[in-house]
Amino acid sequence: MDKTEFDLIKSYFAPLTSNYPEAYSLTNDAALISEDPDRSTVVTMDTLVEGIHFFSTDPAEDIARKSLRVNLSDLAAMGAKPKGYTLSISYNASITSEWVKAFTKSLAVDQEAFECHLLGGDTVSTPGPLTIAITCFGSVPRGKCLHRTTGQEGDDVWVSGTIGDSAVGLKLLKKEIKTDNSRAETFLIDRFRIPQPRTLLGIALLERDISQTALDVSDGLLADVNHIAEGSNLQARIISSRIPLSKSFQNVLKNTLDQGIQLAATGGDDYEILFTTKPKNKEKVIELSEELNIPITRIGALTQGKGTLLLDKNNNEIPITRSGWKHF
Amino acid sequence: MDKTEFDLIKSYFAPLTSNYPEAYSLTNDAALISEDPDRSTVVTMDTLVEGIHFFSTDPAEDIARKSLRVNLSDLAAMGAKPKGYTLSISYNASITSEWVKAFTKSLAVDQEAFECHLLGGDTVSTPGPLTIAITCFGSVPRGKCLHRTTGQEGDDVWVSGTIGDSAVGLKLLKKEIKTDNSRAETFLIDRFRIPQPRTLLGIALLERDISQTALDVSDGLLADVNHIAEGSNLQARIISSRIPLSKSFQNVLKNTLDQGIQLAATGGDDYEILFTTKPKNKEKVIELSEELNIPITRIGALTQGKGTLLLDKNNNEIPITRSGWKHF
Repeated sequence: MDKTEFDLIKSYFAPLTSNYPEAYSLTNDAALISEDPDRSTVVTMDTLVEGIHFFSTDPAEDIARKSLRVNLSDLAAMGAKPKGYTLSISYNASITSEWVKAFTKSLAVDQEAFECHLLGGDTVSTPGPLTIAITCFGSVPRGKCLHRTTGQEGDDVWVSGTIGDSAVGLKLLKKEIKTDNSRAETFLIDRFRIPQPRTLLGIALLERDISQTALDVSDGLLADVNHIAEGSNLQARIISSRIPLSKSFQNVLKNTLDQGIQLAATGGDDYEILFTTKPKNKEKVIELSEELNIPITRIGALTQGKGTLLLDKNNNEIPITRSGWKHF
Repeated sequence: MDKTEFDLIKSYFAPLTSNYPEAYSLTNDAALISEDPDRSTVVTMDTLVEGIHFFSTDPAEDIARKSLRVNLSDLAAMGAKPKGYTLSISYNASITSEWVKAFTKSLAVDQEAFECHLLGGDTVSTPGPLTIAITCFGSVPRGKCLHRTTGQEGDDVWVSGTIGDSAVGLKLLKKEIKTDNSRAETFLIDRFRIPQPRTLLGIALLERDISQTALDVSDGLLADVNHIAEGSNLQARIISSRIPLSKSFQNVLKNTLDQGIQLAATGGDDYEILFTTKPKNKEKVIELSEELNIPITRIGALTQGKGTLLLDKNNNEIPITRSGWKHF
């Protein structure tokens, strides 16, 4: 590194705290969060390792975005309004101050977009891969949040956006599949590289009492559905044909769509919101979908029983060849 | 690793949340902090990398203690009462579930001692060194904390405990120096391996309005004094003979005590509290020292000017050959 830790903090990190006075421009040992008395602070933490969660060739801007956004997606899954984050960077010899400049510039853009601020952190050197740990803070009505374990028998299971894009994007990046459709390719790779946290959706689900049960799809749709099923002591029945697929996904996998659906169901890194709610709330969900301009699709239901079933249109179980998601 | 991430969480990490209901036994995407309306949450983050901040041969118990305690020391420097922490472990192939068991057992002991709880976190695999990032949460009276930048002209500079033990402990570990005094050796190495956060001292300084300016000595006494001097636009004048040295330190370095004092002044990793206060508060500090049974020593003062000077008993400046602390 061509600058000292103090220089890096002063030049690149301290400016990211400029709209958050209680970070004291990173001059203190810690920052304060003075939450409104009628609200609670939500805390989540995610770590990304070069070669595991991102490629060493990824631009600094993308790594910054992904690191922050996977955390923002966790906040969305709790129904929380973003507030701030602390950042730990373990950097190796390949990281230059130019890299840090690009990285922090990208964070600044996302800070504006998601209304959250750097509060503090740590920079250390490592002989290993670049490693970024972010602890992210949000705000919810006091003592209230979305849970993974509160699904009720008879609840419908809904999911936002489209599923499987990220998994296909990764396969395209790794050249395991190919396409002539460069527009679809760009869309799918972007879906892998740049998660879109469903912040407004999560907040609305919680604050309007539409749902009490949600998570963000990161391990893979069925694995994540199963977190809710298991946590709620119920069975989840997911209708394969209802899993929402993007046009790009369908276009790229048009010759192998049956396998494609399996990939979508198990792929992961979608960062869409999966939630359950009583059937009577259907209209509210549809209204919310229109208001936020986000597709939200009913993909199944919770019933008595155990585990998660993927069903075809005749209600027969489709065997799942791959459960959960292993990072590349 | 011989267990899955889910098994590790269930067996070893979830039990660490048992006294903190708003961690939801780690079943959610995040935890809540519902702070008292008249208090603020303090947030700090520190990362430790194998080979940089601890040795790969260090026992899991020591790594756990050090990782948590360097954060608790930051909270103490803010005057905060510990509350909880999130934990990110990037583990490599050398980490077994037995290691995780020992690591979490040690955390459980410190959780009890410092009254703080695991709130959440992340475990990831890495091809690099074991890396532990902790974000630690404490509580202070609303909007109020100790700062690094609020020193006043005429303030005395005080420091808790003894300085330099950790630096000598590290030199003993690295066999750069030797001693026949095995009791002193053990004491000094323990001072390096197991920081003792001055939690009660920090809280008392803040809540009893004894000081408004403090930090914990981690970069090295003079470097840290200089953080306050620079932040407060003042000069710090530190009297070399007043730097408190332990008996073990003096015993091991008895033949080279002049160099020893330089090592103490620049060594780092002391995790003692350095603070400033008006001379009229001297009696309050002495009373606090007696009440907490912690030595607290007046080592200098803040005056008009710039930078930090180390002075001999005739008030002549001692040139400092090494400023700040580089990790091993």
